[in-house]
Amino acid sequence: MKLGVCWYPEQWPEHLWASDVQRMAALGLSFVRVGEFAWSRIEPELGRFEWEWLDRAVDLAHAAGLEVVMGTPTATPPKWLVDAHPEILAKGRDGQVRGFGSRRHYCFSSDVYLEQSRRITALMADRYGQHPAVVAWQTDNEYGCHDTVVSMSDAAKAAFRRWLAARYGSVKALNTAWGLAFWSQEYRSFDEVDAPFGTVTESHPAHRLDWQRFSSAMVERFNAAQVEILRAASPGRDIVHNFMGLFTEFDHYAVGRQLDVATWDSYPIGFLGQGPFTVADKARYLRTGHPDLTAFHHSLYRACGQGRWWVIEQQPGPVNWAAWNPAPAKGAVELWGWEAVAQGAERMSWFRWRQAPTGQEAMHAGLNRPDNQPAAAWPEVEALAAGLSQLGPLPPRGRSDVALIFDYDSVWAVRSQPQGRDQDALATAMAWHTAARRLGLSVDIVPPDADLAGYDLVLLPAQVFVDEGLARRLAESGATVLAGPRTGSKTRDFAIPAHLPPDGLKMLIDVTVARVESLPPGIVLPAGNAGQVTGWMEDVESGSQVETRLTLDDGRGLWFASARAHYLAGQVDDGLLRRVLTNVAVATGLQPRDLGPDVRVERLGNFNFLFNYGPVPVTIAHDLLIGQNPVLPAGVAIWRD
Amino acid sequence: MKLGVCWYPEQWPEHLWASDVQRMAALGLSFVRVGEFAWSRIEPELGRFEWEWLDRAVDLAHAAGLEVVMGTPTATPPKWLVDAHPEILAKGRDGQVRGFGSRRHYCFSSDVYLEQSRRITALMADRYGQHPAVVAWQTDNEYGCHDTVVSMSDAAKAAFRRWLAARYGSVKALNTAWGLAFWSQEYRSFDEVDAPFGTVTESHPAHRLDWQRFSSAMVERFNAAQVEILRAASPGRDIVHNFMGLFTEFDHYAVGRQLDVATWDSYPIGFLGQGPFTVADKARYLRTGHPDLTAFHHSLYRACGQGRWWVIEQQPGPVNWAAWNPAPAKGAVELWGWEAVAQGAERMSWFRWRQAPTGQEAMHAGLNRPDNQPAAAWPEVEALAAGLSQLGPLPPRGRSDVALIFDYDSVWAVRSQPQGRDQDALATAMAWHTAARRLGLSVDIVPPDADLAGYDLVLLPAQVFVDEGLARRLAESGATVLAGPRTGSKTRDFAIPAHLPPDGLKMLIDVTVARVESLPPGIVLPAGNAGQVTGWMEDVESGSQVETRLTLDDGRGLWFASARAHYLAGQVDDGLLRRVLTNVAVATGLQPRDLGPDVRVERLGNFNFLFNYGPVPVTIAHDLLIGQNPVLPAGVAIWRD
Amino acid sequence: MKLGVCWYPEQWPEHLWASDVQRMAALGLSFVRVGEFAWSRIEPELGRFEWEWLDRAVDLAHAAGLEVVMGTPTATPPKWLVDAHPEILAKGRDGQVRGFGSRRHYCFSSDVYLEQSRRITALMADRYGQHPAVVAWQTDNEYGCHDTVVSMSDAAKAAFRRWLAARYGSVKALNTAWGLAFWSQEYRSFDEVDAPFGTVTESHPAHRLDWQRFSSAMVERFNAAQVEILRAASPGRDIVHNFMGLFTEFDHYAVGRQLDVATWDSYPIGFLGQGPFTVADKARYLRTGHPDLTAFHHSLYRACGQGRWWVIEQQPGPVNWAAWNPAPAKGAVELWGWEAVAQGAERMSWFRWRQAPTGQEAMHAGLNRPDNQPAAAWPEVEALAAGLSQLGPLPPRGRSDVALIFDYDSVWAVRSQPQGRDQDALATAMAWHTAARRLGLSVDIVPPDADLAGYDLVLLPAQVFVDEGLARRLAESGATVLAGPRTGSKTRDFAIPAHLPPDGLKMLIDVTVARVESLPPGIVLPAGNAGQVTGWMEDVESGSQVETRLTLDDGRGLWFASARAHYLAGQVDDGLLRRVLTNVAVATGLQPRDLGPDVRVERLGNFNFLFNYGPVPVTIAHDLLIGQNPVLPAGVAIWRD
Repeated sequence: MKLGVCWYPEQWPEHLWASDVQRMAALGLSFVRVGEFAWSRIEPELGRFEWEWLDRAVDLAHAAGLEVVMGTPTATPPKWLVDAHPEILAKGRDGQVRGFGSRRHYCFSSDVYLEQSRRITALMADRYGQHPAVVAWQTDNEYGCHDTVVSMSDAAKAAFRRWLAARYGSVKALNTAWGLAFWSQEYRSFDEVDAPFGTVTESHPAHRLDWQRFSSAMVERFNAAQVEILRAASPGRDIVHNFMGLFTEFDHYAVGRQLDVATWDSYPIGFLGQGPFTVADKARYLRTGHPDLTAFHHSLYRACGQGRWWVIEQQPGPVNWAAWNPAPAKGAVELWGWEAVAQGAERMSWFRWRQAPTGQEAMHAGLNRPDNQPAAAWPEVEALAAGLSQLGPLPPRGRSDVALIFDYDSVWAVRSQPQGRDQDALATAMAWHTAARRLGLSVDIVPPDADLAGYDLVLLPAQVFVDEGLARRLAESGATVLAGPRTGSKTRDFAIPAHLPPDGLKMLIDVTVARVESLPPGIVLPAGNAGQVTGWMEDVESGSQVETRLTLDDGRGLWFASARAHYLAGQVDDGLLRRVLTNVAVATGLQPRDLGPDVRVERLGNFNFLFNYGPVPVTIAHDLLIGQNPVLPAGVAIWRD
Repeated sequence: MKLGVCWYPEQWPEHLWASDVQRMAALGLSFVRVGEFAWSRIEPELGRFEWEWLDRAVDLAHAAGLEVVMGTPTATPPKWLVDAHPEILAKGRDGQVRGFGSRRHYCFSSDVYLEQSRRITALMADRYGQHPAVVAWQTDNEYGCHDTVVSMSDAAKAAFRRWLAARYGSVKALNTAWGLAFWSQEYRSFDEVDAPFGTVTESHPAHRLDWQRFSSAMVERFNAAQVEILRAASPGRDIVHNFMGLFTEFDHYAVGRQLDVATWDSYPIGFLGQGPFTVADKARYLRTGHPDLTAFHHSLYRACGQGRWWVIEQQPGPVNWAAWNPAPAKGAVELWGWEAVAQGAERMSWFRWRQAPTGQEAMHAGLNRPDNQPAAAWPEVEALAAGLSQLGPLPPRGRSDVALIFDYDSVWAVRSQPQGRDQDALATAMAWHTAARRLGLSVDIVPPDADLAGYDLVLLPAQVFVDEGLARRLAESGATVLAGPRTGSKTRDFAIPAHLPPDGLKMLIDVTVARVESLPPGIVLPAGNAGQVTGWMEDVESGSQVETRLTLDDGRGLWFASARAHYLAGQVDDGLLRRVLTNVAVATGLQPRDLGPDVRVERLGNFNFLFNYGPVPVTIAHDLLIGQNPVLPAGVAIWRD
Repeated sequence: MKLGVCWYPEQWPEHLWASDVQRMAALGLSFVRVGEFAWSRIEPELGRFEWEWLDRAVDLAHAAGLEVVMGTPTATPPKWLVDAHPEILAKGRDGQVRGFGSRRHYCFSSDVYLEQSRRITALMADRYGQHPAVVAWQTDNEYGCHDTVVSMSDAAKAAFRRWLAARYGSVKALNTAWGLAFWSQEYRSFDEVDAPFGTVTESHPAHRLDWQRFSSAMVERFNAAQVEILRAASPGRDIVHNFMGLFTEFDHYAVGRQLDVATWDSYPIGFLGQGPFTVADKARYLRTGHPDLTAFHHSLYRACGQGRWWVIEQQPGPVNWAAWNPAPAKGAVELWGWEAVAQGAERMSWFRWRQAPTGQEAMHAGLNRPDNQPAAAWPEVEALAAGLSQLGPLPPRGRSDVALIFDYDSVWAVRSQPQGRDQDALATAMAWHTAARRLGLSVDIVPPDADLAGYDLVLLPAQVFVDEGLARRLAESGATVLAGPRTGSKTRDFAIPAHLPPDGLKMLIDVTVARVESLPPGIVLPAGNAGQVTGWMEDVESGSQVETRLTLDDGRGLWFASARAHYLAGQVDDGLLRRVLTNVAVATGLQPRDLGPDVRVERLGNFNFLFNYGPVPVTIAHDLLIGQNPVLPAGVAIWRD
């Protein structure tokens, strides 16, 4: 894994640059990411360019032996551009313009901004596309951050109407698909369709779902335009985008397919407070991040990059943007590095080289303090670099034991009609991922159109849509299938399937969901001593070939099993989920073992990794290549079979 | 009690209709409600009508022996109408237009929409007014649902100014009535008066109160226009409207006086989460609804219909619109049916015949599932129908033991100037109603202008306005009066009475409220072992003829009694309230007995009903006509003296 | 201390006025405040004046021997003025106009309103400036109440641009100072700078900070305009403004410097719920207010008035504007009076003479009830008046033991970039003030530019800015300095200091803050048995001359000491703060002693005051001039050495 850093020379006096790149190389870094956010410095006014400073910075990096990942600066259009074209600004769900003064102040549906984005991208690609230091391009920055996928602008409304027309062909087909006879919501023309906000009560769920799909398509369109230019002007370079954590506003698989590599911005502590974790877990993992949140995203973006992925921004210390910003535990920065290694990352770079003294991110740590002295993360980066040298070349990450299907469309579907206020398909997927990983199983997050051949076990935590292709691949894969409630609960037009859920799964297990209920927090449905259901429960009718493995105390079946598939009718507690998963995995020939809440393991070829996220040292019975025994809190152990 | 169902033929393929009506009749249903929400199907474009499908549906129902309650479709103006007249849309308190895309997207003050409402109503009345199947008309649907009584539209502002002019005569009178010398708020003309929103801090409480009164009057105006047309064109049919639960935005008594029958939409589980209940009660009654919420509204709408009332929409399973949507307990659907019988309902119909596969209410249960198989409620409807046949004709509901005065104007008054953030006159009325009902007393909710003759006991839980007429009727009724804090605390112009509260009550009990305090949650004022006060306490001065029955530990009098009336100076806990009420009821000659939290009884002629809302079976000492002994959870017992 | 009352004759029939002033004088009051809010009665239409009623009221007061404090009515521009000049209205942070219908509906940046304010002030000053009864003028009312300092109006934006130009000189200097290369936020002209609201994510913290500074300057400008007119037209009269509690939106020191006397509106119970207190403390002090909140503000406004200060509005009973409005304990009204005496107040007047029957404040208690009978506060005012007569002339308030530096700019800095969501420099200052006062130390709240000579101890709870002048005065004062985390953490341009914090303090103690972390609620960092840190912790490097007095269990230094100064690296619990403060105070020669949570003492010359805010009587060993022994709850004791 190559190590690097995000560098913003434009924010610092030029006399620091030479020592910057020298010290980077000395630290063991081999690349820098530059350029993103620098538009106002590259083009201070329309058509007036100042490239020279960036030329010098890139050349300095090159001279120091550093590769360059160049970012397009389109996440921050300058004020002059916004003033010349105020229509590029997005509007919020409340119809208010979202103005200049921070970042991401553009609407994905704006053709005007798309053209500006093409223009600056082409100019950058022309200037640096063939530079020997430049090894990769990053498009824009964190698409959708700050809730910027959805915009209510006039451009978005017009584009949505075109998108609907393309999808449904005729307005009659739209009326039928959405069922608009309900509440006299029928349209006579696509031109009558508005954004699904600002209505008197809940807008139509299919309207909301399609608006999200459309909004995602606009992100794809925007990214594709940059990719096309960069491919042409900078051949042989990887094209990447930096995705985010806990973020589902657009289809990352779709954008990933346009790229060579998926990269993401990993802030284990910054994300902890935003994640679907208990208060106790947020306290326990305050300084390491949750044991599975990072791994979930590593695995997800491995899928998005078709196997190629990087961490392009890595947290080096306290960040500034969470509600509270604790410091990492001693060792955590190194641990996060090895976690990425174990998952097969090609590169990792820290955000950022030096903490800025001003601006929105002034309180965000870097590898250096504002006074240019090494910050707390520095020795841990050194240790990681040394460890990587020690291990030498590493084998590629192979297929995992388990495939977990994660689907953006299903996430949006649940959000469009949750039925229970706290239903969240991402949180469900993460809970299932944690259950598998705590049992020592390795997990590949995969899209619903993935090739499932070769997996022992396929998990469908909340796969609302099971269309024919997925049903066939599930059937043909030979894997055992474990599906949660809501599986196959809607058609793509967002109708309840004609023969009721779980649509697409019935050929594997003959169950029918007759009724659905959601339950407020605090309501618990016990299943004897085995565990309990909260939040969501379905009344299931099962065929004669189906075994009911577990029932609620109220008599309703909870766990149904056939030869090839298992169906869970309710949202079960973590312990019960592990119990079911253990049973299913053992039957599949896997060897699950409960590692407890804190310890996680991964395997890369014949290298074994153990990560201790907990507060207690862990003793292991192996001779270690890296790490000490017992493994301290926030410690890592690596050994070879 | 006749049984029926809400049927939306326009949402289903016509080939299903014939079997629909046959199966309805076979189930024991005798009527359907149709037509509401169907405007876009009746009039797909301005002036182009498609009546035939509705003709066929009505005829089919008729042929199957079903009566028809026809709804006017004005709750859902079609898109073409909104686009032709965007000024019919309401504006929210924030000044934002509330757009098309759900329902109730119109402003009650819009003369343009009033005309459209008249037009479509007249057309429907012409076509179906004389149809032999049509036995009743429902105006619109759920006036005010989704906070649509109050609108900030220009039409509303103009109408408010006219309303003020009519009420006060001169702007000088307005300035005096509201006391606008305070903060230099005086007006020189009615044209200067705006809506009481968007001010820097709290707007004038009398301004807010009058805006609510005005808004209520606009609902009355809107309903009256439809009633007038329907009366003329469809003689002999009942005219009804479907009111809601926990809803106080307009004066339901006033609208009720325009109707023949008050109907309401009873969703015992859907309402539970929104009601003023403890977390423990929301858990305990999760699958039955609160023991008194439904009865409160049955009694309230009996008053609104001058004795005639129906349940026009009844919950058959999980709904979709609450934050969480649990399934009813086995038996609850039948229990709710008998609860309505015991309170004297003429009709009950379930919402809806078949669960829809799409749209905002796709997750709302029906009597049939989306695949047209009977849903869980079906056998309970069968059982209710059979039970009704078994009992034969039932006597009418007579006068109850207790009258509880509930007044919309008082609710608005408390909301306009709560003085303690959580003060809510509806919640107070419900708590008093629960206390009486738990003591086995039957209760009539009545308006403040009701004839009080014949009652043993009259309760005034939070009657802010006690004007001369009410004072006289209280004095002349012969009933004992129990009044809570805030009784007679304001004049109709929203001034503190010249001789301090309780205005209008002093001829019955010589007490004066010298000072008022509100208390944050968690603060408790004990009255020895008798109980405690929370939330609200008044310092009362009492005359020599008044006995102080109970004092707080801090020395302040809490319970004052004269020969004819009792005054409670504070908001007391439920146990203390029952203690006071028991004492007063016994002295009045009633026979209160504590039934505990779960069991409720009602009496209809010589039929006795017992309802078990709790989790424990209840054994009773009667031979039952209906039900089993012991009475199971969610069970009903009926016996005759 | 002179006693008075706020009187609104315009709100009452004139036949009451004569008895009003007679009863005031009989009660021991010697002044009235009149005129504020009376604009619509003085000038019912543009240019038409009705002075006569106010003439008569003032003359009546004069005849009764009462002095008059006259308020300018500019907090409530009449409707005719707003309609003629709608551009005087402010806009909220959401861009919405904040309309007529309550009070403070004007924008401080409006030149049009500034002119109107000058006009009405000049007219009032002409008419009453020389009246023998008039002894003082109050400008406007409660500047900034209801969040009215910040406005988004066009006038504000234009004024902000001028303010920036004046501050930075060139837009290049602005770009550099704010560090706008970050995120391409650079401006080409001051005209491009907008208000820091409505951005996609967090706007620039220096932008927000400067907007607050600018907004504060607009308040100063507005006040100065009235002061200039009043000084000229009414020589010899004090000019005052009534400040508020818990309010930091503008620099009160700066406005105070324009005045002769700082006055404030003291509502001990009304403020309790809004203050940074625990739930337990809010319950414990429900009827007295917090033991230190009132004293904090007395001390603060003593500084704002350069020693001269009044309580111009004092709570006499339940107010109307808090979320809940409890009644004061018996004795509390008198206690609050003596608290002001002990802190050296010149005057106290109650708000208001008589409770109004209508309007927004109808539920606000007065000295009289709405029926004109004495309210509960009356005998306590009598007792205070009698006590003051008994004691005779009192000595002036001298310098306190301790100076606590409180700085509005630092409060805004923390709010502009809190880094931990609940960071609040006012709350921190209040906690430190409480710690000192509970230890029996007397405290002067002082501005950062105060003369510090003569103090034994100077506290810097959260002094973000330590510029050269303050650093020098700290060094030269001879006082021991105790500084909390965040001291000297920013330059005035809101950059992290070049050599890291604590900037300006390093000459007193050689410590460097290498890293900062914030911690969510519930996370505790123990320091053995000594106490704990919550919320905020810094990693500090210290020089060889610095002693580490206390370390966290995780090994980080917490309490650093040099010969002259102490630095606390974390936000410590109240007990630990007292422990540190005791240690430092003893070393300084002071005699701290823990008085417990409820009891507070003050000293005025050789008069000693003891206040019992708690629920338990307190026995003391002195012969009392005022009060009884033991001192009851809400009781006061006064004795002389």
